[in-house]
Amino acid sequence: MSQTAALPTQTLSLEAQLALIQRGTHEILSQEDLVAKLKLGRPLKIKAGFDPTAPDLHLGHTVLINKLKHFQDLGHEIYFLIGDYTAKIGDPTGKNSTRPPLTDEQIQDNAKTYAEQVFKILDKDKTTVVFNSQWFNEMTAADMIALASQQTVSRMLERDDFSKRYAAQTPISIHEFLYPLVQGYDSVALAADVELGGTDQTFNLLMGRTLQSRYGQSPQVCITVPILEGLDGVNKMSKSLGNYVAIYDKPGTMYQKILSMPDTLIRRYYEFLSFKPMDEVEALLLEMENGRNPQEIKRILAEELIERFHDKAAAQTAHKSAGNVLADGELPVDLPEVTLKLEDGQAALFITQILNQAKLAKNNAAAKDMLKRQAVKVDGDEVEVGFSLSAGQTVVIQAGKKAFAKVTVV
Amino acid sequence: MSQTAALPTQTLSLEAQLALIQRGTHEILSQEDLVAKLKLGRPLKIKAGFDPTAPDLHLGHTVLINKLKHFQDLGHEIYFLIGDYTAKIGDPTGKNSTRPPLTDEQIQDNAKTYAEQVFKILDKDKTTVVFNSQWFNEMTAADMIALASQQTVSRMLERDDFSKRYAAQTPISIHEFLYPLVQGYDSVALAADVELGGTDQTFNLLMGRTLQSRYGQSPQVCITVPILEGLDGVNKMSKSLGNYVAIYDKPGTMYQKILSMPDTLIRRYYEFLSFKPMDEVEALLLEMENGRNPQEIKRILAEELIERFHDKAAAQTAHKSAGNVLADGELPVDLPEVTLKLEDGQAALFITQILNQAKLAKNNAAAKDMLKRQAVKVDGDEVEVGFSLSAGQTVVIQAGKKAFAKVTVV
Repeated sequence: MSQTAALPTQTLSLEAQLALIQRGTHEILSQEDLVAKLKLGRPLKIKAGFDPTAPDLHLGHTVLINKLKHFQDLGHEIYFLIGDYTAKIGDPTGKNSTRPPLTDEQIQDNAKTYAEQVFKILDKDKTTVVFNSQWFNEMTAADMIALASQQTVSRMLERDDFSKRYAAQTPISIHEFLYPLVQGYDSVALAADVELGGTDQTFNLLMGRTLQSRYGQSPQVCITVPILEGLDGVNKMSKSLGNYVAIYDKPGTMYQKILSMPDTLIRRYYEFLSFKPMDEVEALLLEMENGRNPQEIKRILAEELIERFHDKAAAQTAHKSAGNVLADGELPVDLPEVTLKLEDGQAALFITQILNQAKLAKNNAAAKDMLKRQAVKVDGDEVEVGFSLSAGQTVVIQAGKKAFAKVTVV
Repeated sequence: MSQTAALPTQTLSLEAQLALIQRGTHEILSQEDLVAKLKLGRPLKIKAGFDPTAPDLHLGHTVLINKLKHFQDLGHEIYFLIGDYTAKIGDPTGKNSTRPPLTDEQIQDNAKTYAEQVFKILDKDKTTVVFNSQWFNEMTAADMIALASQQTVSRMLERDDFSKRYAAQTPISIHEFLYPLVQGYDSVALAADVELGGTDQTFNLLMGRTLQSRYGQSPQVCITVPILEGLDGVNKMSKSLGNYVAIYDKPGTMYQKILSMPDTLIRRYYEFLSFKPMDEVEALLLEMENGRNPQEIKRILAEELIERFHDKAAAQTAHKSAGNVLADGELPVDLPEVTLKLEDGQAALFITQILNQAKLAKNNAAAKDMLKRQAVKVDGDEVEVGFSLSAGQTVVIQAGKKAFAKVTVV
């Protein structure tokens, strides 16, 4: 569900189209190619690739999706590409135990979760979800060798992270050189006109451009969007830094978080996150400069976002539930994070041990008592005394009305 | 057909087995592993890999095959591995037009030619010819990615030719990093105990050793043999340098060539090419030191080799045909080489043009006359006036009794 009406694309001038596409981008490679593509007068194929790892999006992720929406509003075709192929391979060196291969079922589940979140912004009916295993499953070892022949070792070592690791003598497995080629080949398989990605994806986007030329296609335009700062105004928005607004945050939480951000972020958040035209945004910012309370400007943005991710009614009442009392199912803003370590040879922690060690219960007896009273929830679901967590799991535990903790078992 | 009787392996001491294996090797990695493998008391799997490109072996190539024979005589299993898989891929960059993909038919033809030559040394019934496409054709792109994960970029860049090219900024395509892995994986597929190769193959042989460990196998012993000097005693034996003895050389040619070599080569040629036990060789060398004519020592070797590649009768009469008169089908030692260039747009040269341009006939009329008299042979076969050659072909042409030339059309 999208609250902005589609733009009247048929009547938009090329300049106006360009202005919308350029809004909040970091780089367009190249502007000339983009203009030429826009002049083709047909819907362009817009590609963005996503890992099918457990997705739980925050506003930082939506900068890219908003840009996809701009293209969608201009009448172009969005290809939401799930990079399931390499995810199924996992880390074949076996060294990285945090990256086990995903099963087809996990990938389908993750893709569905992803789609549910993304379709709060994009129009589902105008978005094509594709999986790159569709073409890579057909590829033989010989095809992979042929693909690998399309790029040189030195060019690959120019990629920022590779060059740093090579200089630092940190091992780079040869298959890591194949992954950018796999990603680049996706653009060939889709015959993409434009690919979007974060600034950290520039090298990979350009690889798509290179490979398309090699395979006789018109090279795609590469558009990068910047990394959004978190609510602290300093670091990039991230779950682990706690400076994020999740798109699944409850209305009250979302409201409270956005109103807590420093005034210096207002312009950027409007530019990247609001769908208001920039002239409206400039007018609001001018009002603020002329003395209007910044909290009111933030409130307008908060309501736009709450309406987008929840609904209009929630947007109008969010301020009431923010701060004081937690609405049913809502999480406190300052959720404590606890990491619990398994002993050597220990396979899992039982919920009584967890409550105890995470200081959500005074002792084992109190923990058992709470469980009996059905007062313990894990990720919102009541659990019983037999519940346990094993290494690698992260959950939010609520014990009673007010005690919360985000618990990770390692 | 092999003229040496199989060694009495059952009664050979470990020391004697080792001495035979060590004869004429450059390096054994490692000696300890080899001893351990020999003590297993079962036939070992001995691997040697060959490219299925047009094979026309000379004595330099036989150093390795002789070493295979030593293992065969000791009762081990020889796997003559044809690396057809990468030959079928060719040079996927398309930049190297001299390395087009080979067809299955070409590969089968080349393998057959190869085998015919090799089985003049090895016992056909105790040799297994295998093609690595057998396992690689089954491999998917994902399998290739997993294989690529088994080695690092920096380790691969340590290979001598890669490090030189990288330093000189000569492009290295990424697929070139996959080929040593493909070759190494052959050892895994065969579960090889020992791999033999030239000194230039050390890196690739060790790759097999590494991959076998990764795939849970006991790592193979890597044995390298040196490059044999050519008849000039300076450069490595090679067709293009003209300092070679081809195993298809006629008896008289072979005799004459071997007797023309410098005395300084006698020891090495005996060590690498003779199947006489080393104590017999040392006795002959001692006789020479004590005044026996070196030409006689060379003659003994020449006869051994002629018997191996032709037969006993040829060995006994070879000295008669050497030098003065060419026996039927024999080639002169100083065969002139001629390169003929096609004009732009010209698809082929007719035999009359070739005879003319290669100065094998005075003019077109003389050429036609010779053809009518059935006096023109191409690679030993009579040809008629309609015969032609196209670009890339190299043949030996005989016009009349005495006029010969090796002709290449480009």
